[in-house]
Amino acid sequence: MCQLLGMNCNVPTDIVFSFTGFATRGGRTDVHADGWGIAFFEGKGVRHFVDYEAAVASPIADLIKRYPIKSRNVIAHIRKATQGRIALENCHPFVRELWGHYWVFAHNGDLKDFAPPLNGAFRRVGTTDSEWAFCYLLQELRRRFGDSPPAQPALTAALRELCRDIAAHGTFNMMLSDGSALFAHCSTDLHYIVRQHPFSTAKLSDEDMSVDFSTVTTPNDRVAIIVTAPLTTNEDWTRFTAGELKVFVDGMPVA
Amino acid sequence: MCQLLGMNCNVPTDIVFSFTGFATRGGRTDVHADGWGIAFFEGKGVRHFVDYEAAVASPIADLIKRYPIKSRNVIAHIRKATQGRIALENCHPFVRELWGHYWVFAHNGDLKDFAPPLNGAFRRVGTTDSEWAFCYLLQELRRRFGDSPPAQPALTAALRELCRDIAAHGTFNMMLSDGSALFAHCSTDLHYIVRQHPFSTAKLSDEDMSVDFSTVTTPNDRVAIIVTAPLTTNEDWTRFTAGELKVFVDGMPVA
Repeated sequence: MCQLLGMNCNVPTDIVFSFTGFATRGGRTDVHADGWGIAFFEGKGVRHFVDYEAAVASPIADLIKRYPIKSRNVIAHIRKATQGRIALENCHPFVRELWGHYWVFAHNGDLKDFAPPLNGAFRRVGTTDSEWAFCYLLQELRRRFGDSPPAQPALTAALRELCRDIAAHGTFNMMLSDGSALFAHCSTDLHYIVRQHPFSTAKLSDEDMSVDFSTVTTPNDRVAIIVTAPLTTNEDWTRFTAGELKVFVDGMPVA
Repeated sequence: MCQLLGMNCNVPTDIVFSFTGFATRGGRTDVHADGWGIAFFEGKGVRHFVDYEAAVASPIADLIKRYPIKSRNVIAHIRKATQGRIALENCHPFVRELWGHYWVFAHNGDLKDFAPPLNGAFRRVGTTDSEWAFCYLLQELRRRFGDSPPAQPALTAALRELCRDIAAHGTFNMMLSDGSALFAHCSTDLHYIVRQHPFSTAKLSDEDMSVDFSTVTTPNDRVAIIVTAPLTTNEDWTRFTAGELKVFVDGMPVA
């Protein structure tokens, strides 16, 4: 199994604090040492970093912890290999282009007997069930909606249906973003928190590190953090229910 | 205009020496300060770094200069914007998936009245003529060869024809790789060198830096470096002729 971290904000925000706690689970406070990755949207562009080294040992993860890349949508992943060998092409998140936008996807879980036909528009490069699920999702979105993206409610309804079908094959905790929204589906473990005015101090559970967000924010900032297991010890995280798909826009879940 | 750097090797090799000289042209010894990028194949996977900062000022470029990522195929680019604003989505190289392989592409030049129809399989995310040309190349390869890649001679013949057509619209110096070969097309400026046994010392033209390759190689290693303008002052670089497409495999051009 693996762990997921996502961030969705109304203004570009850095993820240094949350990523520092999360990356510690990649080989130090937890066992997810078979690679890691993170993708940041900046406008329509994506910065994509993957590594098959443990996040705690990776020079690139070290850079991310020191270099505050600001983004409105971020997805990160630390890997404990279940299907697919330890190799760069099997590291999440995965990136593809659909409708002239990049899409970023990461998955935690294990799918059994999951082999839907892929028509060739999106094919996996590696050997994971996760990348297969991502290619299938994009293929089905394109099949349903053709050459243009639908409005968000229709997109969400389609993703809810597709996630339910995929999750019938096993555990399908996943995060997906096209840069405008972050979609998160929970089979077993996902939690989120919305940080907004009045901001307070948060304390990491995996590192001896605190941040007083009131000193680094404006009253209009809003940030949603979505993660497999809560990252801080002194905040109220909301647990997703099994089978739930939530859509985050501008730093909060939308109905 | 921009500058291109490519490396193709028979064993995984780091590009620290060549990239150090090349990145210096990204804002210090030359004017290409509107972003940069580099992509490394590792097996079937790709490490992809792009930035809209000048390469001389970028913390990520600094990491690449210090962290010896080993790869058999690398493509790098420093940008002087002609078409498309300075933004992450307009930084080369671009990456897409075709036939279950990642493809990496970078372009130097300017295409006029170039707007071939794209059928939707590959669409540009940014606003450059370069990304349009890349999407068109992949679309046409898929249209010609269907769901499976052809043997390399047929692929090369198709790329030669497509590059000739695109180059009719302006300057089309480009590099393309699927991780097994590096294709380089020259309209105006491309040079290459093959470094192999007996290795000697090379001296950068843009930095006060030399490397004695005989101390860091084995007699079986072979490395081809392809670049817009020669990177060293004491080696014999071969200039491409206008309209030429060369294919590099295992560190040397193939017939």
